[in-house]
Amino acid sequence: MVENNFPEDFKFGWSQSGFQSEMGYDNAMDDKSDWYVWVHDKENIQSGLVSGDMPENGPGYWNNYKSFHEAAQNMGLKMARIGVEWSRLFPEPFPEKIMADAKNNSLEINNNILSELDKYVNKDALNHYIEIFNDIKNRNIDLIINMYHWPLPVWLSDPVSVRKGIKTERSGWLNDRIVQLFALFSSYIVYKMEDLAVAFSTMNEPNVVYGNGFINIKSGFPPSYLSSEFASKVKNNILKAHSLAYDSMKKITDKPVGIIYANTYFTPLDPEKDNDAIAKADSDAKWSFFDPLIKGDKSLGINGNKLDWIGINYYTRTMLRKDGDGYISLKGYGHSGSPNTVTNDKRPTSDIGWEFYPEGLEYVIMNYWNRYKLPMYVTENGIADNGDYQRPYYLVSHIASVLRAINKGANVKGYLHWSLVDNYEWALGFSPKFGLIGYDENKKLYWRPSALVYKEIATKNCISPELKHLDSIPPINGLRK
Amino acid sequence: MVENNFPEDFKFGWSQSGFQSEMGYDNAMDDKSDWYVWVHDKENIQSGLVSGDMPENGPGYWNNYKSFHEAAQNMGLKMARIGVEWSRLFPEPFPEKIMADAKNNSLEINNNILSELDKYVNKDALNHYIEIFNDIKNRNIDLIINMYHWPLPVWLSDPVSVRKGIKTERSGWLNDRIVQLFALFSSYIVYKMEDLAVAFSTMNEPNVVYGNGFINIKSGFPPSYLSSEFASKVKNNILKAHSLAYDSMKKITDKPVGIIYANTYFTPLDPEKDNDAIAKADSDAKWSFFDPLIKGDKSLGINGNKLDWIGINYYTRTMLRKDGDGYISLKGYGHSGSPNTVTNDKRPTSDIGWEFYPEGLEYVIMNYWNRYKLPMYVTENGIADNGDYQRPYYLVSHIASVLRAINKGANVKGYLHWSLVDNYEWALGFSPKFGLIGYDENKKLYWRPSALVYKEIATKNCISPELKHLDSIPPINGLRK
Amino acid sequence: MVENNFPEDFKFGWSQSGFQSEMGYDNAMDDKSDWYVWVHDKENIQSGLVSGDMPENGPGYWNNYKSFHEAAQNMGLKMARIGVEWSRLFPEPFPEKIMADAKNNSLEINNNILSELDKYVNKDALNHYIEIFNDIKNRNIDLIINMYHWPLPVWLSDPVSVRKGIKTERSGWLNDRIVQLFALFSSYIVYKMEDLAVAFSTMNEPNVVYGNGFINIKSGFPPSYLSSEFASKVKNNILKAHSLAYDSMKKITDKPVGIIYANTYFTPLDPEKDNDAIAKADSDAKWSFFDPLIKGDKSLGINGNKLDWIGINYYTRTMLRKDGDGYISLKGYGHSGSPNTVTNDKRPTSDIGWEFYPEGLEYVIMNYWNRYKLPMYVTENGIADNGDYQRPYYLVSHIASVLRAINKGANVKGYLHWSLVDNYEWALGFSPKFGLIGYDENKKLYWRPSALVYKEIATKNCISPELKHLDSIPPINGLRK
Amino acid sequence: MVENNFPEDFKFGWSQSGFQSEMGYDNAMDDKSDWYVWVHDKENIQSGLVSGDMPENGPGYWNNYKSFHEAAQNMGLKMARIGVEWSRLFPEPFPEKIMADAKNNSLEINNNILSELDKYVNKDALNHYIEIFNDIKNRNIDLIINMYHWPLPVWLSDPVSVRKGIKTERSGWLNDRIVQLFALFSSYIVYKMEDLAVAFSTMNEPNVVYGNGFINIKSGFPPSYLSSEFASKVKNNILKAHSLAYDSMKKITDKPVGIIYANTYFTPLDPEKDNDAIAKADSDAKWSFFDPLIKGDKSLGINGNKLDWIGINYYTRTMLRKDGDGYISLKGYGHSGSPNTVTNDKRPTSDIGWEFYPEGLEYVIMNYWNRYKLPMYVTENGIADNGDYQRPYYLVSHIASVLRAINKGANVKGYLHWSLVDNYEWALGFSPKFGLIGYDENKKLYWRPSALVYKEIATKNCISPELKHLDSIPPINGLRK
Repeated sequence: MVENNFPEDFKFGWSQSGFQSEMGYDNAMDDKSDWYVWVHDKENIQSGLVSGDMPENGPGYWNNYKSFHEAAQNMGLKMARIGVEWSRLFPEPFPEKIMADAKNNSLEINNNILSELDKYVNKDALNHYIEIFNDIKNRNIDLIINMYHWPLPVWLSDPVSVRKGIKTERSGWLNDRIVQLFALFSSYIVYKMEDLAVAFSTMNEPNVVYGNGFINIKSGFPPSYLSSEFASKVKNNILKAHSLAYDSMKKITDKPVGIIYANTYFTPLDPEKDNDAIAKADSDAKWSFFDPLIKGDKSLGINGNKLDWIGINYYTRTMLRKDGDGYISLKGYGHSGSPNTVTNDKRPTSDIGWEFYPEGLEYVIMNYWNRYKLPMYVTENGIADNGDYQRPYYLVSHIASVLRAINKGANVKGYLHWSLVDNYEWALGFSPKFGLIGYDENKKLYWRPSALVYKEIATKNCISPELKHLDSIPPINGLRK
Repeated sequence: MVENNFPEDFKFGWSQSGFQSEMGYDNAMDDKSDWYVWVHDKENIQSGLVSGDMPENGPGYWNNYKSFHEAAQNMGLKMARIGVEWSRLFPEPFPEKIMADAKNNSLEINNNILSELDKYVNKDALNHYIEIFNDIKNRNIDLIINMYHWPLPVWLSDPVSVRKGIKTERSGWLNDRIVQLFALFSSYIVYKMEDLAVAFSTMNEPNVVYGNGFINIKSGFPPSYLSSEFASKVKNNILKAHSLAYDSMKKITDKPVGIIYANTYFTPLDPEKDNDAIAKADSDAKWSFFDPLIKGDKSLGINGNKLDWIGINYYTRTMLRKDGDGYISLKGYGHSGSPNTVTNDKRPTSDIGWEFYPEGLEYVIMNYWNRYKLPMYVTENGIADNGDYQRPYYLVSHIASVLRAINKGANVKGYLHWSLVDNYEWALGFSPKFGLIGYDENKKLYWRPSALVYKEIATKNCISPELKHLDSIPPINGLRK
Repeated sequence: MVENNFPEDFKFGWSQSGFQSEMGYDNAMDDKSDWYVWVHDKENIQSGLVSGDMPENGPGYWNNYKSFHEAAQNMGLKMARIGVEWSRLFPEPFPEKIMADAKNNSLEINNNILSELDKYVNKDALNHYIEIFNDIKNRNIDLIINMYHWPLPVWLSDPVSVRKGIKTERSGWLNDRIVQLFALFSSYIVYKMEDLAVAFSTMNEPNVVYGNGFINIKSGFPPSYLSSEFASKVKNNILKAHSLAYDSMKKITDKPVGIIYANTYFTPLDPEKDNDAIAKADSDAKWSFFDPLIKGDKSLGINGNKLDWIGINYYTRTMLRKDGDGYISLKGYGHSGSPNTVTNDKRPTSDIGWEFYPEGLEYVIMNYWNRYKLPMYVTENGIADNGDYQRPYYLVSHIASVLRAINKGANVKGYLHWSLVDNYEWALGFSPKFGLIGYDENKKLYWRPSALVYKEIATKNCISPELKHLDSIPPINGLRK
Repeated sequence: MVENNFPEDFKFGWSQSGFQSEMGYDNAMDDKSDWYVWVHDKENIQSGLVSGDMPENGPGYWNNYKSFHEAAQNMGLKMARIGVEWSRLFPEPFPEKIMADAKNNSLEINNNILSELDKYVNKDALNHYIEIFNDIKNRNIDLIINMYHWPLPVWLSDPVSVRKGIKTERSGWLNDRIVQLFALFSSYIVYKMEDLAVAFSTMNEPNVVYGNGFINIKSGFPPSYLSSEFASKVKNNILKAHSLAYDSMKKITDKPVGIIYANTYFTPLDPEKDNDAIAKADSDAKWSFFDPLIKGDKSLGINGNKLDWIGINYYTRTMLRKDGDGYISLKGYGHSGSPNTVTNDKRPTSDIGWEFYPEGLEYVIMNYWNRYKLPMYVTENGIADNGDYQRPYYLVSHIASVLRAINKGANVKGYLHWSLVDNYEWALGFSPKFGLIGYDENKKLYWRPSALVYKEIATKNCISPELKHLDSIPPINGLRK
């Protein structure tokens, strides 16, 4: 039997990172962040690698978080996934001893070191995060705290030097010491905020960090240094860092610790010929990351069982064609469409050219469920759609896709939309509008129509029959044949 | 001081005609209507004058009116303007005596004749209308009953013969007898339903009846007989009919009696050169109709003061260029754009090519207010927009336009959106989607996102700050430069 | 074996009517033509039935025919099909006796009556036509003279009255007398110009005369009077008129006499389901007209063998769906696409929305060839394409389609492009640009690129390998998915 | 007086590089070229920096040059600018002594060293170039030989290492030794081919080499290493290399030696506010390069007078806005439009998004003429337009722009279109179609319509009145508002 309602304890909410939303007022600068340096780098701007938009002109969550929370509350949202910025909490390097031990892989993470670290934290930033998170809690919104959403403090990462091929200790994930340092930082967050969250995530989309930073370098992600080898090294350090962080955090909390991952759904150009490619792509893109964490991987020194839950970010699919033993991802589909037109499959595309493909979310969820049987959250899903033309359809049809997965047995515990309010979309700057809510030049929030649609869904915990028609591909107008 | 709230007694609601919405079930046929005959005429269909869509496949308000009313109630609507169909109430001709007297212009409309007429009414239809209107009343929705919204009974009108140039008594508004017959019918409605309505309208958009029926005959309106002379004759008969109906109705009711009119806002192509054209066009399009009714016109035998209120229907503007003493209306603007693209002014167009021009509504209201100082309702305003892409903007920006007029002093008492539910758009059939609500193959209603937006406005009696951003021209996407 | 060259005696040329091209200078007015009256009629203009463009602002062939001919000569063209205007040659009615006899169906067409008629002809117009045609001859361009290309003299046709349903003798093809009058006029042309032409055509697209004049009345063709019955009557009179004209003309000339017909190629929406519809549509559209002329039809009094050749006009296809015993032609294909976009089949459309479908020309030719084995000319083929974007492809791919038919055995003797120079496209006025050549405000001719392409083909009598790539559907650009 | 004809000795022709056109057959590989290595680099392909198209699948000029030349001859072309590939002539390093001397800046270029070098040249390649150029000469087509069109031999350049920040001697233009080596190579070409050419160019668009290679690295040009400092160093070495090459070449030949440069025309967003930006941009983009060569520059050791002529490559403009003391180039104009739509100025864009802006060519020519009074050739001008929709307009309107400059006094001696045949457009691969001529899978050439237009112009040495209409912006269709 198909159920129309979501499970009673299912949570509708939103996802948000620190760097993309916090700044916007003079007193809220996060200039000790490597991403801050990166997007201000003149050569990066001149070359078009980054937009030239400045994150300090953002929506200003750091100051006006209450208006964000109030809007979410009015929208009936019950969960938020928010990131904390390492560079805010520790704008200066960890003490030398810790740095040295981490370098030697001899750091022990325990209460002593955590209370030691507490002396070095930026107290104002720490208290401000706690204030923000308390405000969330007081509104009966459950919080998932995410430790890492791409920026690192400048004392760990100098992406401009890496981009230039200059040797530097501050090479971010390329320097092995980060494994222990990250675990320490994550543990410290739990140590200070254990009561504020219902769950923790170590990282958001770590696969994008090495994918865009070292392979798809036109994306303009730091360090834009093209190297499969470095990508691979970063991937390994990330796996180790999560594992160590997991173990350390679980010593302090019983709350579930997970990771949030960027997913696409692979479709074969020709189902008869290209199916092999799908299995291979899934293995490369997903299982090669999750199997070590869940099943263990000797070469990485990971003994498995390092995840209590999986966070699924999903935006669109990827079309594949088999190519020898491997595969090629085809232009004109998925993430590589042209803006505001249709793909070869007559699917509409978003303001940044991403294809409308809601069924992929169900299938991605089922892929994970069938392989791991772990609880899941949809931790990101949304569309760059300034006019809010497609978002009502996008929202309903992707949520309907989640419901179908639940009705097939998948344990999905929440759907967190990306994003509540328009924010800084990394190298693309402010032009992509992912928010259910926009903001004006005074940083007043205004609702897009889909915010009302989401409110209907969140409040009723179902897609009510009146909204069912939005579970479809948006009609293609004359100009969008 | 600009007020953000609408006056406390301001009503948000919707407008609806009989013929366009009632049918949809087997037991609800209205086949004694000349429009029914017209859209079934094989030659009309073959020629493309009419769509070939059949009104008997409509949304079925006659049967499922409660679901319409319930939706409106949920949407916070407080007023409805609904039409009654002469052909349903009197599928057979009025008694001979009445017909003969009307022909001689010697009919007296009084209680005797009304109670005589009562014997000939279709009791089932009458009671069903009363049942429908009571349901509206019971939901605390104010009702304006409109007597005439284009169809006539076949015993009065045979448009196919008129189209062919065949002489016939059944020539609708071309036969003078209709003046008294219409007044009688209208009075009868008041006689039977006085308590159900808060106001009455004699006619909806009479100017379209002769404009499309006798001038713009590509519109496919009956009788599609091209003749300025006939257009003029119909106009005069309509003016006389309204006047006589007004006098007759006011003998029975104190409630305000008005008329509903199709308006456009005239803009000059070159403000320096073409301004004369505007005054002339306004005079031709509006004042030549309203002045006789309000100020009187000896040649028509109308002594003025025949309106208690004015109903303003507005969809888009008309661009004019001076041409000699007259003017030319320009293609590529207003009603004559191409579907789903932009006009030369970079304004977006709707699914049927109408231009987005909200400021025109304010100006049209002010035109009327400055000239007549009569109370007004916006009795129609809406957009054909299946995807609901522009409607949220259309809705908010037109309602904001009304508010600006109110803040300038105009006495506007309500805004009635066209329409609540998708319906039969005359010769165009079902393809234009004007509804806040659509319906599926089981005639279940589904809400478009803008229905939620309208609910916000109607419920709060203002355009709340969160929605202000929708008071703008919809963003033009890549494809819609 | 497939031949790449056209037969040695194959002619490339162009087609042109009188009314559409002749006017353009003050001394060249053709105001005794019913089409002249029709397009000047204020009600027609006001209603949008006609464009408001005035044919007297045309390209001015009457005066500057030499520049037309010179361009054609430079282009390597060897054949022209040109129309003469009855209203120019006989602006006043034929003598009473002739009118009376024609009414009684008792007119005898012989040398006596032709020499009698010679007294009434407008000598200036006659001599001017002869002058024009001699100039063509002197340039070694073969001429086909066409007698009737839609306009009639006003003394035979008052379409405005017919449109109004007013009884009139001047009802054009509805008045039976036209059968003999037309035969007389056609014979007179042969009588005076036999030596100037290589072949004669009685009529151009007679099927459009009744199809658009009495059925598809939104096309704005005179008399825009909707009546299947009248359409049928006109069709019969046209068939009789051609037959009588054929017999009369052949008494004077041995040169081949044919008729030029408007064709479309019918394609089934679903080849498995809709094939019956194709046969029926072909029968209705083509065989019901040609069978009587070729095989005879007792009820019409036609004994067959009335055609020496068939002129095929082809622009695009028509998509059909079976509907009961009949069929429906589908919107969004063929003639009913939207301008400058693509159809559902991803075929591009022209400036007036016609679909690119070159293969249809081959199939239409083969249809005729298989049924009648008569010689054929392609007498019209072209595209409204102001930018000349698709015309190079259109030209080559349609000419290639003709070549395929020839290689299959069809006897096609020439290809005449519509048109050499932009002209007056009837109710649409000047906006559709069908010319290989345009003209500026001084009526100077300028070549579009496809004129150079046509020159290559005409000069070499083949589609040279260098041009083969143009035998394809034009590439769909980003905006034209 | 405005002349309509071009000067009698004006040459219409085409431009072509080696790397982009030569390959296409197995025996024609140029795999010792750094660009060959670059576009085959797996990381480059995977990252999307390069297209993945392989130059060895090109049009194959090396083998079928005669079909190119024959087409040009048929088109009436009288001049060609062709590049030679260093890597073909010297696939192996120059002898050690030469390398060492160049490193020490102590190389003397004289007949001895040239005859010494002759021992090391690839004789087959040398003879083949001579054979090709003789074929050009025999067809009465004047030849300009260009020495450098971006690729370097791999023994001089390892762009993948440079991209990675790895120190290498093979750093191309970053290694100072190239100054003397380039001068030697250029002199050697003159030494061997002096009689085959009417003029020589040292380099094609050297400004793109450092602009795209070190600044706009998303373009995917080698080495895609972002560094203003390196860009500046390369610029200086290029200036020195040209100067030395000029002096060395002029010792061997009297024929004019020039340089070919990539130009854009700068337009101010707001002519009242942004004019300062134009002067500054012109200085940065043009005068900072040409002034040292022509007027001399002590710091570079250049004493001026190093150019006999200037080659102007022009495709579109650049829109600027003043920004502080500098300027910003605006997106949505010039080179940064979206494909196949219009810019904010309603100018159409090409298949790769470049804006149609013909007037810029005239102005750029006049800029040079007014400053330097040197003879000029337009050495590149063309459009990526697979459908050949805009190219007829582009061709005529840019050639008309050249004519206007000539009529104002500029000494422009020829117009060389880019390109004759579609070729390999560097990192973009084969998808941009710049050819007047395309080719099929058998490398047969097919003409686009504009080839016929160009033939008209080249043959008549003027834009004949019949083609004047093409001197305009292409009409914007429905879809291209």
